[in-house]
Amino acid sequence: MKFIRFSLAGEIGYGVLQDGVINPIEGDLFNNYKILEKTIDLKDVKLLPPISPGKIIAVGLNYLDHVGEVSAAASVPEEPMTFMVSNTAVIGPDDNIKLASYERRTDHECELVVVIGKECFNVSEDKALDYVFGYTCGNDVSDREIQKKDGQWTRAKSFPTYKPLGPWIETELDPTNLDIQTYVNGELKQNSNTKHMIFPVARLISFLSSFMILYPGDVIYSGTPQGVSPIKSGDVVEVKIHGIGVLKNKVI
Amino acid sequence: MKFIRFSLAGEIGYGVLQDGVINPIEGDLFNNYKILEKTIDLKDVKLLPPISPGKIIAVGLNYLDHVGEVSAAASVPEEPMTFMVSNTAVIGPDDNIKLASYERRTDHECELVVVIGKECFNVSEDKALDYVFGYTCGNDVSDREIQKKDGQWTRAKSFPTYKPLGPWIETELDPTNLDIQTYVNGELKQNSNTKHMIFPVARLISFLSSFMILYPGDVIYSGTPQGVSPIKSGDVVEVKIHGIGVLKNKVI
Repeated sequence: MKFIRFSLAGEIGYGVLQDGVINPIEGDLFNNYKILEKTIDLKDVKLLPPISPGKIIAVGLNYLDHVGEVSAAASVPEEPMTFMVSNTAVIGPDDNIKLASYERRTDHECELVVVIGKECFNVSEDKALDYVFGYTCGNDVSDREIQKKDGQWTRAKSFPTYKPLGPWIETELDPTNLDIQTYVNGELKQNSNTKHMIFPVARLISFLSSFMILYPGDVIYSGTPQGVSPIKSGDVVEVKIHGIGVLKNKVI
Repeated sequence: MKFIRFSLAGEIGYGVLQDGVINPIEGDLFNNYKILEKTIDLKDVKLLPPISPGKIIAVGLNYLDHVGEVSAAASVPEEPMTFMVSNTAVIGPDDNIKLASYERRTDHECELVVVIGKECFNVSEDKALDYVFGYTCGNDVSDREIQKKDGQWTRAKSFPTYKPLGPWIETELDPTNLDIQTYVNGELKQNSNTKHMIFPVARLISFLSSFMILYPGDVIYSGTPQGVSPIKSGDVVEVKIHGIGVLKNKVI
């Protein structure tokens, strides 16, 4: 199912989307909810980020072909390389990416984003996917100069609007074999498949849960493949993941 | 005033502490609260972390004398070097630090911790302290092997129990001239003053708020001075900050 979050007449709601029609839901997305009979037309609402995340954990260097383009000195990690970014950077599919600087190089990074559905700690890899609510598209917009200068990656990836998420959460999906792409102004820039992840989603959840508790609503940006490139004001960036959909944001 | 958070007979409460006596408070710590007439004896409660933080932001290399001991290659940052750690690592003054590994070197780091009281974004340095609720003691326990291996510092500092906080929040305090110390089993290990911070608290808040929204209940671990050293099972670690008090935790 596709779960969306939207605003309509000043109210924020969740709903299930099918064939352009929303059935609003009542209750708690992660526990008990009821799908209502009434319908709303998709084109009448503003789409919000499909989740307002608690923690955002991100994974660096998780596609082999991307490791080389980051720096000649970068080596393939033995374990997932993880860090956190601020949830105040999240925007939805109808929002603009506002560049924090027009001078510093700032790149798109298409990523499969995992939405946690149940609290977990110390889960094994073979049980890890039981804790997933669903998947959405993410763009891990990154300020390359700040990223290099700080060494720690939090600031470079936490500027307001630098974490687009959406357009919705798909709950029925195998995360191990999904085509993932970025288009900028219609031109294909990144083109890979989640099967090329060094550490697949189940391993990431198991690994993260070995040192932090994951809660419903936490999200994991699972890394980007080769092909990152600078974005500039006026660009339209689309992250497309097979089985989910397209996350489209304008850059201003 | 000293604000504490405690549990008593299974209930969690906030209170104001004076001369070993707690006056519980009703309402929202950051907005409207009422100090009740009734009193509770400090020794009858279990002290909890004085805040259950939203975001935890930490600052690396913020005392000149500590930069050198981290690595010969480390240089003094031009801007604060910031990153985030998981709030699931927080423990209170009555809890134990549980080592994630008995083999890997794990250090204490005494730190002045800032508790944000009002939402802020893009605040100037001269207005920054208006957004502070108060200050408490923190121990930024760090797994040195993981810190070096990952490059990103989130995991090394996010293991459960690695973020002791407390014993209470002091709201009337000038953060620019406070003696700060760590004792391990009564032996003085770190001994400095917050006046030696490279970037003082007001600058940290202004800087952080330039790229993320800070909310009431977010906390900032403001960096540690020289003298970090390994802790082992059985040790008792005390972080002492003049004007606040002592945060004491046993290592298991």
